[in-house]
Amino acid sequence: MSSIRVAAAQINPTVGDLAANARAAITAIEQATVRGVDLVLLPELAITGYPPEDLLLKEGFVADAQIALAEVVAATAGGCAAVIGAVLPADAVSAGSLEEPADAGSRQLVNAAVVASGGRVVGTVAKRLLPNYAVFDEQRWFRSGTGPHQLFRVAGCVVGIAVCEDLWRSEGPAASMAAEGAQLIVSINASPYSLRQQVERRQILADRVAETGCAIAYVNQVGGQDELVFDGGSMVVGDDGHLLGQAPTFVEHLLVADVELHGSLDEVTEGLIEISSIPRRVGPADELDIWPSRPVEEEVYDALVLGTRDYLTKNGFTEAVIGISGGIDSALVAAIAVDAIGASAVRGISMPSRYSSDHSRSDAEDLATRLGIRLDTIAIEPAHVAFSTMLAGPLDGEPVGLTDENLQSRLRGVLLMAISNDTGAIVLTTGNKSEMATGYSTLYGDSAGGFAVIKDVPKTLVYDLCRHRNELAAARGEVPPIPAAIIEKPPSAELRPDQKDEDSLPPYELLDPILAAYVEDDRTVPELIAAGHDPALVERVARLVDLAEYKRRQMPPGVRITTKAFGKDRRMPITSRYRSTSGR
Amino acid sequence: MSSIRVAAAQINPTVGDLAANARAAITAIEQATVRGVDLVLLPELAITGYPPEDLLLKEGFVADAQIALAEVVAATAGGCAAVIGAVLPADAVSAGSLEEPADAGSRQLVNAAVVASGGRVVGTVAKRLLPNYAVFDEQRWFRSGTGPHQLFRVAGCVVGIAVCEDLWRSEGPAASMAAEGAQLIVSINASPYSLRQQVERRQILADRVAETGCAIAYVNQVGGQDELVFDGGSMVVGDDGHLLGQAPTFVEHLLVADVELHGSLDEVTEGLIEISSIPRRVGPADELDIWPSRPVEEEVYDALVLGTRDYLTKNGFTEAVIGISGGIDSALVAAIAVDAIGASAVRGISMPSRYSSDHSRSDAEDLATRLGIRLDTIAIEPAHVAFSTMLAGPLDGEPVGLTDENLQSRLRGVLLMAISNDTGAIVLTTGNKSEMATGYSTLYGDSAGGFAVIKDVPKTLVYDLCRHRNELAAARGEVPPIPAAIIEKPPSAELRPDQKDEDSLPPYELLDPILAAYVEDDRTVPELIAAGHDPALVERVARLVDLAEYKRRQMPPGVRITTKAFGKDRRMPITSRYRSTSGR
Repeated sequence: MSSIRVAAAQINPTVGDLAANARAAITAIEQATVRGVDLVLLPELAITGYPPEDLLLKEGFVADAQIALAEVVAATAGGCAAVIGAVLPADAVSAGSLEEPADAGSRQLVNAAVVASGGRVVGTVAKRLLPNYAVFDEQRWFRSGTGPHQLFRVAGCVVGIAVCEDLWRSEGPAASMAAEGAQLIVSINASPYSLRQQVERRQILADRVAETGCAIAYVNQVGGQDELVFDGGSMVVGDDGHLLGQAPTFVEHLLVADVELHGSLDEVTEGLIEISSIPRRVGPADELDIWPSRPVEEEVYDALVLGTRDYLTKNGFTEAVIGISGGIDSALVAAIAVDAIGASAVRGISMPSRYSSDHSRSDAEDLATRLGIRLDTIAIEPAHVAFSTMLAGPLDGEPVGLTDENLQSRLRGVLLMAISNDTGAIVLTTGNKSEMATGYSTLYGDSAGGFAVIKDVPKTLVYDLCRHRNELAAARGEVPPIPAAIIEKPPSAELRPDQKDEDSLPPYELLDPILAAYVEDDRTVPELIAAGHDPALVERVARLVDLAEYKRRQMPPGVRITTKAFGKDRRMPITSRYRSTSGR
Repeated sequence: MSSIRVAAAQINPTVGDLAANARAAITAIEQATVRGVDLVLLPELAITGYPPEDLLLKEGFVADAQIALAEVVAATAGGCAAVIGAVLPADAVSAGSLEEPADAGSRQLVNAAVVASGGRVVGTVAKRLLPNYAVFDEQRWFRSGTGPHQLFRVAGCVVGIAVCEDLWRSEGPAASMAAEGAQLIVSINASPYSLRQQVERRQILADRVAETGCAIAYVNQVGGQDELVFDGGSMVVGDDGHLLGQAPTFVEHLLVADVELHGSLDEVTEGLIEISSIPRRVGPADELDIWPSRPVEEEVYDALVLGTRDYLTKNGFTEAVIGISGGIDSALVAAIAVDAIGASAVRGISMPSRYSSDHSRSDAEDLATRLGIRLDTIAIEPAHVAFSTMLAGPLDGEPVGLTDENLQSRLRGVLLMAISNDTGAIVLTTGNKSEMATGYSTLYGDSAGGFAVIKDVPKTLVYDLCRHRNELAAARGEVPPIPAAIIEKPPSAELRPDQKDEDSLPPYELLDPILAAYVEDDRTVPELIAAGHDPALVERVARLVDLAEYKRRQMPPGVRITTKAFGKDRRMPITSRYRSTSGR
């Protein structure tokens, strides 16, 4: 039996900020060294941040990343050994150990784990399974590792390395490493959050431990990157399946755990790389560092806050402006914004029209008061009148119907963007996923802005999140931020007299399950009908979703929280005559 | 020596329109049969249209595509044999001949060539090289073919089948097929147009003929599909390298050619599939059907016209509306729109502001007269005044500077969108690639609309295209559509007094080459400086490009004509701190 102290450095890199990411990695190595760690794990592509996307096609970027990597490697001199996620040129890994690309392209990069000790690189491992589905495009940039696994010995333990996806397939790289003699598999990840992801991830680790008999140390990055938010939740599981450590989610953390290994070393192949374990032991690790899992609303809310905060701060925004209608969507977005960057950095704009109700205005004011944000009011009537008059000639009469509804929404968009241009504050849009899906929004109107905070949140979950946020406040003895009236009144866009969402859309309790099945699970209309949904309703919803693709293509980015968000997760053609209604 | 008559059916499928695509394929088979063809080739994924993207993730869609395919296969009863591009479930091709996916995904589809004769499927061939770069994501959906090639014998000739990319790699599938005995390689394609593509494609065919000693029959689809436009240009090349047929570009065409084959059949492997060649011979094919290659401006102009026409018609639009500023970009877009859907379906809107010059208004009128389109004029002053007043409070004074410039642009966007909502006409936007690249545009202003016709056309090429269109008119004895004054005056956005583009941007003759190197060739700032560009200029341009990514993400689609368009061709993160200026 042998024992190793590992650390999972759950850091928050910024894509492209090579110097800052290197500094964060060096800091983690220093902290792990102080705590007597043998081997510290940094996330997948920690030097570049994940995903660097087509920055990888710039040779100069890859070259700059090698300079930053070298600084991190140098920091292991006199400190503990480290496994560092980094892009490498293909010729930096041993020849013959890479697959040819499966097309006529000329990819020459590897998504690698670099093992550093004593200030130098002692080995590199190429990722084998390159995810190319959902939001992932890794076969666009990388070549796969192949052949026998390179194993390492640290503190008397035989260690194999899996880069993210490599751990996900049964009878895959993890099983091979175990067969070749690994006792501990270290897994470096950049695995984005989605609703079912944490449960699935814990199950994968349990399955792999059961399959391989190895202990697993798993590190995941944290932070927002465009539409993705990474939740961390790094874990260490013993070879008997016991949880030895679990980091909190959505925050940076250095998770340290001692792992006892029971396997024998008999089967270890030739070619093992020895890693000297420098640190003086500082006694046993602290008591188990295990943070509990939490209810889904808490997770999602935290994901939205972190995704929003990181989009703003990493893109240099210090202030946000939000159109506050008095409805529930803008209330939730305002609460998230305040939790992300503070009330003093958030400004609400109420933009009543001739159709706005008194309760909308008072609810907007109540919300702003509870959140402690500034609220300006700009009535859109003068612009509404001006445009109606200007358009009367070309349209043979003043705008009516949908044209007039969209007009009002766009006048608000113009106001918010003018305030954004003048102040430098980013406009946060307030559309939810149910609206995105059905096209129940106005291009350049309510959808105009820099970040669409809740674009992947179905309307029914919007209600749950508001209730959660209010309950959290109550539990803390604070004023619940979202007025009860906003949660209780029927949703309305207020673009014509007495308008209700349910005049145009099915009730959200009926709509959202159909959307989830049609969008996230790729079910077709006949399949949904066979599953018991109302046929006319299903056909109508599917048609709305199909026809709104052109609108979604022009939406701002927003936080992905489901298993399939609109965007690079769902690459539907705009031009498509496929309507699954008739089977043809 | 043997002889075969082949036909390349250069059709224009619509993604998802399974019934219409099947009808077009059946018509091609019927026409080829009449002309005594032995084997007719339909493009890659002709049944679904290319690229069907994530429609492929819907099992119901794939099932519906099999029904449409079966109708096309049935049409070969009593007609000539056909090679049909179609998606197949993996279990429809022989076991053991497919690669495992290179990740933990579960793809079960094949991008296939289906060989049909006598009304039934006689063989299937899976695409081997699945492009996963540039605009292509084929490893997202498909598994690769592997193992020995399935060859066919038709009219005494041994035929191998390459699906698109399979022909592109030297020492690849084409070479293996030749080594296994093929005399003729038929290549079914969906290969999008770009500036250098036609030259490259002719070179590839010449290289493959030289490498393999096989004749090659190459079919490519035509038509627009979202941002892609396919140029056709199908070709037949003899085994001695002589061109035996070349279809015209950007139009549907049935290219028929007789191919003499000089190789012997000695090396042919077991397992050859015999295809009965039913048709009665109707004498030799007509004289060689060879359409000449054309100058680049002609090609690009035709690409823009077809891409625009197909986006509109395939999405159900019959009319277009364009903001006509009196500048060159809107002039070119209007000319393209008229060539795409006819003058009576195009409406121009002149929207002068307090800063618009007299010559802009008169140039707009002259353009509309030449093109024969309706032109309405709506002065934006009333709305400009209304918004300035409404914003004075929240902004502590009326909007000035960039806020005021963007405001004017957005008021125009609101007007055009209202007209679009009221009439059902699509708004065509007029921004060019130089503006897209540098962010010299207003979100929700001049960029608001359904299709961005020239978004991938650099400004210098905009001038060339206008001159080309005028020369074409002159050659036809028609009135040149674009007034000389529009081509000759310095470009200006006219959003403040005496504004010129060159106040904000470098001269386009300097800018465009830097943009091409930075964007299309992925060069970094140090590399561009080393190549002799002005250092300060390069740093400024690179920064403009980097910072405008968020704007580009919300632009409408438009026709891709370069080797790297913004969009799925260039997947840059919005959130990125990488600035190659300092090397870090």
